[in-house]
Amino acid sequence: MIARLCIIGVGLIGGSLARALREAGYCREVVGCGRDSAHLQQAVDLGVIDRYSTDPAQAVTGADMVLVAVPLGAMETVFKAIRDHLDGTAVLTDAGSAKGSVIEAARQAFGTVPDFFVPGHPIAGTENSGVAASFSGLYRDRRVILTPLEHTSREALARVRAMWEAAGAVVVRMDPRHHDAVLAATSHLPHVLAFTLVDSLARLGDRGEVFEFAAGGFRDFTRIASSDPVMWRDICLANGDAIQLMIERFSEDLQSLNRAVQEHDGQRLLEIFSSAKRARDRFTRD
Amino acid sequence: MIARLCIIGVGLIGGSLARALREAGYCREVVGCGRDSAHLQQAVDLGVIDRYSTDPAQAVTGADMVLVAVPLGAMETVFKAIRDHLDGTAVLTDAGSAKGSVIEAARQAFGTVPDFFVPGHPIAGTENSGVAASFSGLYRDRRVILTPLEHTSREALARVRAMWEAAGAVVVRMDPRHHDAVLAATSHLPHVLAFTLVDSLARLGDRGEVFEFAAGGFRDFTRIASSDPVMWRDICLANGDAIQLMIERFSEDLQSLNRAVQEHDGQRLLEIFSSAKRARDRFTRD
Repeated sequence: MIARLCIIGVGLIGGSLARALREAGYCREVVGCGRDSAHLQQAVDLGVIDRYSTDPAQAVTGADMVLVAVPLGAMETVFKAIRDHLDGTAVLTDAGSAKGSVIEAARQAFGTVPDFFVPGHPIAGTENSGVAASFSGLYRDRRVILTPLEHTSREALARVRAMWEAAGAVVVRMDPRHHDAVLAATSHLPHVLAFTLVDSLARLGDRGEVFEFAAGGFRDFTRIASSDPVMWRDICLANGDAIQLMIERFSEDLQSLNRAVQEHDGQRLLEIFSSAKRARDRFTRD
Repeated sequence: MIARLCIIGVGLIGGSLARALREAGYCREVVGCGRDSAHLQQAVDLGVIDRYSTDPAQAVTGADMVLVAVPLGAMETVFKAIRDHLDGTAVLTDAGSAKGSVIEAARQAFGTVPDFFVPGHPIAGTENSGVAASFSGLYRDRRVILTPLEHTSREALARVRAMWEAAGAVVVRMDPRHHDAVLAATSHLPHVLAFTLVDSLARLGDRGEVFEFAAGGFRDFTRIASSDPVMWRDICLANGDAIQLMIERFSEDLQSLNRAVQEHDGQRLLEIFSSAKRARDRFTRD
């Protein structure tokens, strides 16, 4: 049970967690924090949070659990703002899509990474953002990756794990660097490709026409290009090394496919497409 | 009205057209043709076609409308097989995803491109294939592009147009080369990227894990990688020039984005992602 949950950044991710925990009766009070009062008032009106403050120091006061769910570029600023105001028993966690950079931000803000800080990342989301898009079922049966350090408090880890499980998620533990490599492959690279494709097509001369003749496949393929640009800028800056590696690997594979197209190498094309279809069908079945 | 429609290649595309025309009462009889009797019998059992033949020459006999809906690589063979057996009043059309190559296949088979041949391409489909996946609503409000040549019979064009409109589609006319360029951008490139991404990830060492931590965005993004590999091999061979151009253009844009990641150029990343989001959101709204 959480007595007072403070959510800094009440958007899709933070808002959905609040909804899920309230629905589960796992949380007595939710305090929201952000920069925009109108947005926070909307969260109150939607029943997602009980009250709010635009001052992080004030918002975390008395909270036994603090979730920071802001874009990666804002983590360090938030950590610095709350550093001296956290309750002695408070557990701190985050929802950032890259873990190395958040751990580094905590180190910068706190001097050393606090033992009550449990870095986390819920593998869930939609292309929509904002508290209005939040819903209690977002985490049901979805993975949440926690990346504690060696000195992270076991009790803090257990409390964050229990919170996500109360929201319906399946919690797994991972090394932060490994997390960043896996997510670069499965999430960051696909987003980069979708953004690049849509931007690339949008700059074609016959732009309107190009989109006019796009079918359902294109719609699905590019859905993630509607994701929040600021969040994704921050992810590309925060997990740049792993993302670069994946872009380069992908580019080589794309050049290899391009050569097969040039050389009319039907056999090679069939191999690539069949391998991809098998992997994709296996993924869907699981 | 069509008295006898012959569909060569009774899969998702041909099967869905047959279902739609039967539902609309636009077609008295549908004769299917393909290489696999069991598959054709399934189409009879599903009520998609009335009868079938595995011999194209026999199947087209007495048909006033012939739709060839086979992979692009099989077009020329089919055209040659039916060449001397088409009814004097028959109209011939196809559903190939690239038009230049089909027109060339017709030229090879018939000597010159027949005036009763109307090249066509319905912009519809799902990642599923086969007659079992067909449904009558596939073409409702979807575009069908017809790419007649200068000497194409007006009457043949009108009859093919009327057929697709009876199936619920919106018919537009386009120059074949322009069609191939537009489709390379909106359909062929996205498929190539999705296939390449899934194949690339499937060859990572921690393959199972990579897919295990993929979220909904990845699922949407890669759905088209479940498409039929043979069909897509043929598209890459048939529309190779236009696809190469698009791959190269995309690769340059991806390299430019990669440089922005390397140089920690947040401003540039935000510009690209914002432009893409605007274009994608506009596309969805329309």
